[in-house]
Amino acid sequence: MKEGIAYSKLGLCAREGESVITRLMADKLSHPEMLSLAAGFTDNLVLPEDLVLKASVRLGESGHKTHLQYGMNRGHPELRKWIVELLRSYPGEGHLDLNPEQVIVTNGSQQGLYILVQMLCDPGDIVLVESPSYFVFLELLKGLGVRAVSMPCDDSGRIDIEGTEALLESLRDNGELDAVRMVYLMGAFANPSTLCLDEPTKTGLARLLRSLQRPVPVVEDMAYRELYFEQPFPARSILALEEWGDHPVIYAGTFTKPFATGLKIGFMVSRDTECLDTVAKIKGHQDFGSANYTQSIIASLIPTREYKEHLIRVRAHYRDKRNVLEEGLVRHGLREAGWKWEQPQGGLLLWARGPAGTDTRMGSPFHRLCVEKEIMYVPGDLCFAEEKPWNCVRLSFGALERSLIPEAARRFCEAALDAGP
Amino acid sequence: MKEGIAYSKLGLCAREGESVITRLMADKLSHPEMLSLAAGFTDNLVLPEDLVLKASVRLGESGHKTHLQYGMNRGHPELRKWIVELLRSYPGEGHLDLNPEQVIVTNGSQQGLYILVQMLCDPGDIVLVESPSYFVFLELLKGLGVRAVSMPCDDSGRIDIEGTEALLESLRDNGELDAVRMVYLMGAFANPSTLCLDEPTKTGLARLLRSLQRPVPVVEDMAYRELYFEQPFPARSILALEEWGDHPVIYAGTFTKPFATGLKIGFMVSRDTECLDTVAKIKGHQDFGSANYTQSIIASLIPTREYKEHLIRVRAHYRDKRNVLEEGLVRHGLREAGWKWEQPQGGLLLWARGPAGTDTRMGSPFHRLCVEKEIMYVPGDLCFAEEKPWNCVRLSFGALERSLIPEAARRFCEAALDAGP
Repeated sequence: MKEGIAYSKLGLCAREGESVITRLMADKLSHPEMLSLAAGFTDNLVLPEDLVLKASVRLGESGHKTHLQYGMNRGHPELRKWIVELLRSYPGEGHLDLNPEQVIVTNGSQQGLYILVQMLCDPGDIVLVESPSYFVFLELLKGLGVRAVSMPCDDSGRIDIEGTEALLESLRDNGELDAVRMVYLMGAFANPSTLCLDEPTKTGLARLLRSLQRPVPVVEDMAYRELYFEQPFPARSILALEEWGDHPVIYAGTFTKPFATGLKIGFMVSRDTECLDTVAKIKGHQDFGSANYTQSIIASLIPTREYKEHLIRVRAHYRDKRNVLEEGLVRHGLREAGWKWEQPQGGLLLWARGPAGTDTRMGSPFHRLCVEKEIMYVPGDLCFAEEKPWNCVRLSFGALERSLIPEAARRFCEAALDAGP
Repeated sequence: MKEGIAYSKLGLCAREGESVITRLMADKLSHPEMLSLAAGFTDNLVLPEDLVLKASVRLGESGHKTHLQYGMNRGHPELRKWIVELLRSYPGEGHLDLNPEQVIVTNGSQQGLYILVQMLCDPGDIVLVESPSYFVFLELLKGLGVRAVSMPCDDSGRIDIEGTEALLESLRDNGELDAVRMVYLMGAFANPSTLCLDEPTKTGLARLLRSLQRPVPVVEDMAYRELYFEQPFPARSILALEEWGDHPVIYAGTFTKPFATGLKIGFMVSRDTECLDTVAKIKGHQDFGSANYTQSIIASLIPTREYKEHLIRVRAHYRDKRNVLEEGLVRHGLREAGWKWEQPQGGLLLWARGPAGTDTRMGSPFHRLCVEKEIMYVPGDLCFAEEKPWNCVRLSFGALERSLIPEAARRFCEAALDAGP
């Protein structure tokens, strides 16, 4: 008999993995009336149609055509300059000592994260993550055969530094400390916990990691940083905290969430030259540069008043949608049923924990009831490296139309009350 | 002493590799008057500024905003539909039995090639390539720790099927046949040889590869297919040749070269569902979809008359520039000096072989003389997996302004005559 194609280890790994997104989309397609609190999409209503159109026209009429030509592997020079300015614009970070050579533009922040993991981890190696963590990142790790190990966190998702120290000790005892190659943090309005990392946690982590013999690079993913509701979160980024010294820290940011997901432009920033040069080489192999056109559009908009006004508008928009979702959940009795959540102060998500015994996993009675009632959520267990607890859900108020959120909240609460813990 | 960051095998591989592009760009930057026949860029003059502007305006005024939103991981559905139509539009391929589910849109064709190699090859595995082959692909392989092995080819770059059979036999004898995981071909106006694969070669290869116990997937890179000068090359693509049967064949195409490099949209097509599903999963980990905006622009343009007119215009433009370059080389005595080349019938390149003894490698007297005379080329040895012969050069008439090509030709010939073989 003829044999099949011989796949690489990575190919086999990818074949075995199931994609949550694919599964959620299949659910949605087979139930067209489904209301989705699952999708992490932004709201079409506040996508910056006018701004992109204006920028496209300005570029089209500029007389030069460099935006339609190949650009630099590391990214559009103007854009990288503005990214440095952007990073300096946050509270307490005005004196950030950075230059555009320390920025690499990527296809969304996802490509940046992928390259970092490729660069640092062989199959079987370990990345330390928060508990819960971003489930698409956890899938990325699986796809590369890399193990995610959770740092101990409290119920709200805050990292327990002493617990993490104990974790590292036990890894050392097992001879696995050398396998720890990277730490992945979500700094602001984390997906899914919506928590912001405070400075004491970051500096505690700095002390802990700097005490190790080998520097384990730390990545702070700030995808939601711009989407604050009341005020910028006051904690400075790891780039700005002196306690990290010359430890290799990498900042990952994006223009997808705050501006337009369809332009697919993210970036990473680091002062570690060797590390960034290596990222650039891998990026060179993958695509030798992101689309110059979408980069040019963003570069031309960042310094404008309209861009700032756009951000103000989207913040207000998502704050309002958060309120609508929260009011709906309260009105329909979710709190009385024993569910808990912290009010999100930014981002597109609400992270809720059901009472003990609740099981929200895919295929659970709870999940089947939701599919029946045509309401979608992301089962919380998918956001944990160790696949528990099972009582959490990630609800998104990003993509669903504002007018449909009350009905979505009603359906979800009904299912939660019917399924019970 | 404190240790450095622990890199993965891939990270170390990337750190060690030198990028030719980087080196060429450094040469250019330190000699601003340098005329470049090295860059594989397209000509700014024929970049479709008007078309992209029109499409952007049409999208901006459409009232829907899906082009600014996340799209599907496999790519924009309309675009994939038009790609199928495009493939059916080539001579003799009207009945190609394909559907949009067999297309995946990528960040240039480069990302598609990268994912295929990741999926099929572990470090140390072998990809069979033409001799010469595309040097950026050879670098990609090095970056993933994969070995390129040349199929025997004649002087013009045509694959010797019997020689390839003997190569496979000797790999079998060495116990390395199982390490052969992929075959990479450039089907039309190959980079750098400008050769087109004829049907007898493709079907000969089909017979040979189908006789193996394990199917080794074959990738036909058709990046330059649209850039023909007189008429479409008559050989059908591997997708259309019955001789391949159900052998896993993958077609890689792009809109960068014929349309706009700055939009960075390529694609791959295959009927092998398992293979394509696995590519999609890896793409999902890398970026979960290329920029929807640039895809929407192209999708809206392909079916228009203007798009076809654009292609006619660029073909004429590059044919003319080929003529100017060739005339310059002849006028300044390159043929008399013993150099040989075949007239390119498409693409952006001219592949020339110096007389025996010529050494065009980087750092050679020939190369230094060119840098001195401020003229750049790609040393031909970089285009061979085994790094020889040394007597070839790749000259591009793509990016350099038409009016500067005669002077560039003059400088190159002067260097060639001065350096001698």
